[in-house]
Order: sequence, then structure tokens, then C-alpha cells
Amino acid sequence: MENRQAKSIKKGLSGNGFQGNLAVLMQQVNIGIIGGGTVGGGVYKGLQVNGALMASRLGVQLRVAKVAVRDLKKGRAVNIPPALLTTDWQSVIDDPSIHLIGEFIGGTTTARTVVLNAFKKGKSVITANKALLSAHGEELFAAAAKYGTNLYYEASVAGGIPIIKVLREGLIGNRITRIYGIVNGTCNYILSRMKLEGADFGEVLADAQRLGYAEAEPSLDIDGHDAAHKTGILASLAHGFWVKPKDIYVAGITAISKLDIQFAGQLGYTIKLLGIVKKFESGKGKSAKIQVSVYPALLPNSHVLASVNGVFNAILVRGDVVGDTLYYGRGAGQDATASAALSDFADAALDLKCGTKSRILPFTPHEQDGAVLPISEVVSRYYVRLSVIDKPGTLARITAILGEANIGISSVIQPEGHEGSSVPLILMIHDATNSNVTKALGKIAKLSAVKAPPVMIRVESFE
Amino acid sequence: MENRQAKSIKKGLSGNGFQGNLAVLMQQVNIGIIGGGTVGGGVYKGLQVNGALMASRLGVQLRVAKVAVRDLKKGRAVNIPPALLTTDWQSVIDDPSIHLIGEFIGGTTTARTVVLNAFKKGKSVITANKALLSAHGEELFAAAAKYGTNLYYEASVAGGIPIIKVLREGLIGNRITRIYGIVNGTCNYILSRMKLEGADFGEVLADAQRLGYAEAEPSLDIDGHDAAHKTGILASLAHGFWVKPKDIYVAGITAISKLDIQFAGQLGYTIKLLGIVKKFESGKGKSAKIQVSVYPALLPNSHVLASVNGVFNAILVRGDVVGDTLYYGRGAGQDATASAALSDFADAALDLKCGTKSRILPFTPHEQDGAVLPISEVVSRYYVRLSVIDKPGTLARITAILGEANIGISSVIQPEGHEGSSVPLILMIHDATNSNVTKALGKIAKLSAVKAPPVMIRVESFE
Repeated sequence: MENRQAKSIKKGLSGNGFQGNLAVLMQQVNIGIIGGGTVGGGVYKGLQVNGALMASRLGVQLRVAKVAVRDLKKGRAVNIPPALLTTDWQSVIDDPSIHLIGEFIGGTTTARTVVLNAFKKGKSVITANKALLSAHGEELFAAAAKYGTNLYYEASVAGGIPIIKVLREGLIGNRITRIYGIVNGTCNYILSRMKLEGADFGEVLADAQRLGYAEAEPSLDIDGHDAAHKTGILASLAHGFWVKPKDIYVAGITAISKLDIQFAGQLGYTIKLLGIVKKFESGKGKSAKIQVSVYPALLPNSHVLASVNGVFNAILVRGDVVGDTLYYGRGAGQDATASAALSDFADAALDLKCGTKSRILPFTPHEQDGAVLPISEVVSRYYVRLSVIDKPGTLARITAILGEANIGISSVIQPEGHEGSSVPLILMIHDATNSNVTKALGKIAKLSAVKAPPVMIRVESFE
Repeated sequence: MENRQAKSIKKGLSGNGFQGNLAVLMQQVNIGIIGGGTVGGGVYKGLQVNGALMASRLGVQLRVAKVAVRDLKKGRAVNIPPALLTTDWQSVIDDPSIHLIGEFIGGTTTARTVVLNAFKKGKSVITANKALLSAHGEELFAAAAKYGTNLYYEASVAGGIPIIKVLREGLIGNRITRIYGIVNGTCNYILSRMKLEGADFGEVLADAQRLGYAEAEPSLDIDGHDAAHKTGILASLAHGFWVKPKDIYVAGITAISKLDIQFAGQLGYTIKLLGIVKKFESGKGKSAKIQVSVYPALLPNSHVLASVNGVFNAILVRGDVVGDTLYYGRGAGQDATASAALSDFADAALDLKCGTKSRILPFTPHEQDGAVLPISEVVSRYYVRLSVIDKPGTLARITAILGEANIGISSVIQPEGHEGSSVPLILMIHDATNSNVTKALGKIAKLSAVKAPPVMIRVESFE
């Protein structure tokens, strides 16, 4: 199958306008793009601008042969010639002159069918669809293997940062022990502005929506689900077993108040939404478990991730051989995502040219005993903010509850300048399991001197 | 040739101890390591630790079959079984059971012969040798092409950061407009400590030598030549023509004083040794020129590169599609370099397995008209420190010389607290060509009120 398609690309040469002797043979790979929106339009634009440059680097010319769209008459930010447009995506997949399919429609229903149908036709697929991978990754990887095709998904995580290639190839000699990712630009934009301006969450969200940095329906971003899709993909790739979305603990940023950002700042911390993947040492004969979570965390201001601001993404990857490495760039937007998709098209084109479509598998399930550690068992440090009535004995009652639960307090701060019926009390808590802390906070919440549900934010020490 | 060697790997299976049906066929690639020092030892150790993991990810087992060393009896930090050792590197290359060669002896003479001889035997080479590439890159790439082999050199630039793969593959859809790299860990360590401790260059260098962060003979590092090797490789890869070492302007850090670090700090800047590659827009019909330089520069403290400290490396790459991206990690040391070499061995093993040794060329000379802009024509901003006698008219004479040369001054600072026969005077100079500024400073140096040669450090605004 593979060699047949490779040959058909070579044979197709006579009709594609390229001249030259065999030594400088320029081959052409025809692309069918499904979805003419932000990403599909970006890929088209990117090839218009840099297609010739890519061909000179690759020895293969990438050509957009067809673009399937929902509405032929819809105005588009990127101008695609009407002759390329069709509303019939299946015809693009079926077209024998088209070698590669770009799935850029988003969603998890039609997109799944697009990918599976392309595989059935022996065509590899390039996608930017993290939700699709999160929901149906295992099925799609199995289908790619079954049909001798491949699925390329660099654009699905962290936009223009080539993090998939880095994890899969660049750090292949490493056991990955930690991943800390700022992988949702919307959340990072909101948290950055809240810190910079001392503004409230709702205020900044509304402004972000007005500026186009947040969706009208923002829950996918601000509730952490988009970050969870990406974190799950990175965890799976790094650890060699498919991390199920249901096993990922997810907390978003809607509960982060400007008060907490301010107190964290006074203590030398910055709050960021992190995708976290940690491998814990396992005892002899025990299978290793990994933490896979998304939650807002306090980072020391001196840590490089604390200074990643605005819509930028950054991912720290720690390998047992290489140590700490970090990758930074635009995590979203038409052009950044297109850059990632173009690199996938280049890889796919080379794989077609060489007749090696399965040279690097999209995912190798090499860890049979891999499992996700439940959040209840995850150990971390904590920032806890209580609203208490400022009267004698309150602190004693609180610390007694924590003491009974064997939870150590590293510091207690009662910030000055707060008057009224209740005052803030900040506790910094030593390493403890989530279940222990949650239980203790439940008891503390019931104290008569505690006037609001305790605010708990994890503290990341990057150990 | 390629398919023949791929077949020989598959045939060799029966004798390598692997069992299994065809569906889970595990292939073995035998590696010959030339040089059992830091990098060679690191690769051996890395495969000891993570070889099985890599095999499960790759479907190919990497095995070190032979290690050629200079002295069989020399003690080694990494314990290599004596049965693997030989002093006859040519026999390793000639050994028909060895598929890939790692050149880790360093230097440019024997190393060149090792690589060429391996190519002649149809064997691809993995190297960490930036000096070799800098001196003989064009010849070696041509030889690789001639013999249908490949040269992999991820480990030659920025240690464990997979920057070669990022530039060659991850950002292939981009025209690279800027590269700013902190690519010499020794210099960055020295400059970081000078800033942190207010210490003098010589003092910190001596300590760095004691701690093993600087060589006994440190000139390759501190004079900028090592950074120039790496910057030249990155520039060549990004711009598609081979940048000759002689065309790279190089200035090291030996002239950086604690006084300049201190004044720069007061003005909001940090001094770093940068490898800089800038593409300038060219007029119609003119071929594009790029700046390729290594020099210490003042960076705004707020810039992410300003906070890269110690022996860490970081490289900012700006692409026309992706925007700014940044890559950070350990730039040297046994393990970081081994991590990079292991990823090259993985790529090379896949290319062998697939019979596609030239799938991705080590270098594509796609820019026929590329040329390096002479430093004299490079435009930048400048920090200038003069030692002047504090008497009326001095500043007027200095500014008159700059004015005549059409050089704009953005600010003049006479730091307080300096008494004596001469006082420091800091000039921050607007965009001007290097030749213009150098000439003007030559005139200023001759003024009777100017008591020492002017100190000039470029200011990088990352535009």
C-alpha cells in the first residue's frame, strides 16, 4: 500500500508542471483541507507565503488541491480561490489525486468520521483537533495502524511550539519525569491581566471576550477542559499509555480572585493555570503511577514559568537524562497553529515520498502497566485563604484540626489593612495529600469563626 | 545501497537474541562509538539506562557494539566493559556488523577522517562536534550525499535542547527572521555570577575553572569562538546557505567589566553573550543578506533571555508564521549532550530500518544568493562608556563628534559617586552602523579629556 502510493506520487510528476532531471526531481504532494476556518485558512495562507521555501527545503512541493467548507458563500479572512472550494468533504477524501488530508473542522463527531474515512482510503491525516484526540485518540491511532496510515497532531497542543515532535523525537532518549505546561492562552491572558492590573476575573474575562482572546462561551477554556485535552495528550505521549480524560483532575480559574493573586504576590508567588504530569517513583514490583492534572497553582516568582505572560504558552519538560528543558511560544491563533500543521504536512510528505507512512507512530503504547494516580492521593503544598472572625482562639482551633490530620503549616499570615466582620487568614501548608487537606478544610469550614468556604490553591515547587 | 543495508539489519535479527513473530519484530541497530570520553561515555550510559525504553518507543533496539578509545587502560567516569573497547577506530568503521557510527572524539582532523571513512562504508554518522561542522560542514554534507549516508548533529548545538530538529523540521514552514542564542554555558555562567555577585571577570573565571565550568585553556569559550561555531550552524540551517566561519563577526566577553554590568543594571539591562542571526529585508532584485554575529549585548531586564542564568542555554527563534518561540535547557555536560545524540541515533535507526537514510538532509543549500552582511554595515544601538576628565566642554566636544557623524544619542548618564582624575560617562546611542560608531569612537578616544579607550557594547532591542 505504502509503496504504491509513493510510486503514484512519483508518476504524477509528469502532469504537475515540474521540470527537471532526475537528480533534482521535485515531487508534488496534493493536500485536501477539510475545514476552511481559522486553521484551514491559516494552512492555505502559510503555503501561499512559504510553499516555495518549504519545497526547496523538502524536495517536495505541497499543493492545496481542495478545501471543503460548510458554506461556499461565506466571507473568509483568508481568500481561497472559489475553484478549490467544495461543500462535499467526502469527495475530497475520495479524490485519487489527493494524497494527504488536513482535518481542521473541529468538534468530535464529523471530524472523527473524516479521519476514519481518510484512513480507509489509505490517506494520512494532519489535525489540530485536541478535543478529537482526547475523546477518540485510542480509536484513531488503532485505525491508523490498521490502514497503514498516520495521524499527525503537532498543531493540537501549544500552537506553534513543536512540543509533540520534541517529546516524541527530540527527547526520545529520556524517561520524562515532569511536565508543567501553561497550555491555555485564554486563561494565561486573564491571569496575567488580573495580576498586572489588580483586576477581577469577571472584568478581565469580559474584556478578553471583547478583544477576541476568549470565546463568547468560555467554559472550555476557563474551566480547564481545553488544557486537560492537551495535558492528556502530552501525558500519553510521554508515558506510553493512553490517559483517559476521565482520569485527569481538572480545576479551572473561575474561582481565582484578585485577592488571592494579590496575597500570592506578597508571598512571592504568581498564580498560573498549569497542566501537570508527574511520574512518581514506584516501589519494587509496583507499577509506576503518574499524576495528570490541570489546576491553578502558585509558582515562585523566580521560576521561569511565572514570567510567561499574556496569550503565550510554555511547557517545561524534565527528562532523566536531559534535565529541565523549556519550550515557549504562541499557543493559539491562526498563524502559530498553521506553523505546526505545516511541519506535520512536511513530515507526512516526506513519509509519502519515502513510502514510510508509519515511520514514526503517532503513539506507541509501550507502558502496559501505566496508571493515573487519583488526585486524592496526590501530594502537594497548599495556599489556603480563610475568612475568619478576628477573635482569640480562632487560630488555635484551625491549627488543631490541621494538627490532628498530621498536616504541617509552614506559615500563617494575617495580612494587615483588612477590617470588618471577617478578616483574611492565609495558611501555607506543607506537603500533604489532597484528600487529607480537603477533609481538614471541610472541618475548618464548619467552625463558627470561619465565615466563607476556604479557598485552597496548590503550590508548585517544581521538585 | 540503502535498501541493501536495511535488509541486512532485518536479516541480522536471527542472531541478536530477539524473539517474536513478524508483527512485533524488534530490530537491532549496532552502534560503533568513536571516542569514549564525555559524550561517548554519556551515550553509552544513556543507552544502559534508557535503551529498553527507547526500543519500546522506536521498535528498534540500539546496541553499542564497539567503543574506540585512545587508551584502553585509562580510568573512565562511565564504566564501559573492556570487551567493547578497542584502540583501532578504523576497525569499528570497517566492522560489517556495525550500522551507525558516533563520532565523539572532538577536534577537526581525525574526526573529519572518521566521518568521511564511515560515509565511504555507507554508514551514517552521529556527531556532537561543532568545531568539525564549522570547519568542514560543506565537505561533510557533500560527502554524505555522495555516499547516500547522513550526518546527524543535534548534539553539536545547545546540548540537550533539540534546536536542530526544531529548526529543520518543527519550524520548516517558517522563514526564520531572527535567532538570538545564549549558546555558550561557560560565558553565561561567568556573566551571571559577575552580575549576581558584582564580581570581576578574572575572579569568576578562575572560580569557574576550579569548578569545571570553564576549561584550563578557556579562550575557545570566552573569546566567543565556540558560540560562533554554533551560531554559524544555526544560521546555515535556517537560511539555506553555508555561512563561512570567517564571515561571522565574533567578540567574546573578556572585555566586560563589573562596572559595565553594574551600569547596565542601573539602566535596566543585563549583559549576555548572544549568537545573533538577523535577516534584513532586501530591496527588489537584491539578494537578502543576514547578520551572523557573536557579541556581548545589553538586553532589557524584562526580556526572557535576560533571566537565563548559569550554564543554561536558550535560543529565541522568530519565524514569519509562528512568531517568537524560545527553547531552553542545559547547553553542555555529559547527560544533556547524550540526550541529543540519543535522539539522533533514534532518527538514524529509523532511517536505517526504513531504508531512507537521506529522508531529511543534514543541510539543504536552498538559498543560492545568501550572503552575510559585514559587521561594519550592521545597524544596532550601543552602550558606550567613556572615562573622562570632569571639566566643562568635554561633553560638548564628544556630542559634536557624534553629531557630525549623524549618530543620535538617546541618553547621557554621568553616574554619581565616582571621584578621581577621571569619571565614567555613559552614552546610549540610537540605531547606527557599526562602522559609523567605530569611526566616531576613534575620534572621541583621541580627545585629551578622554582618559581610556571607549568601551562599546551593543544594545539588543529584539525588533
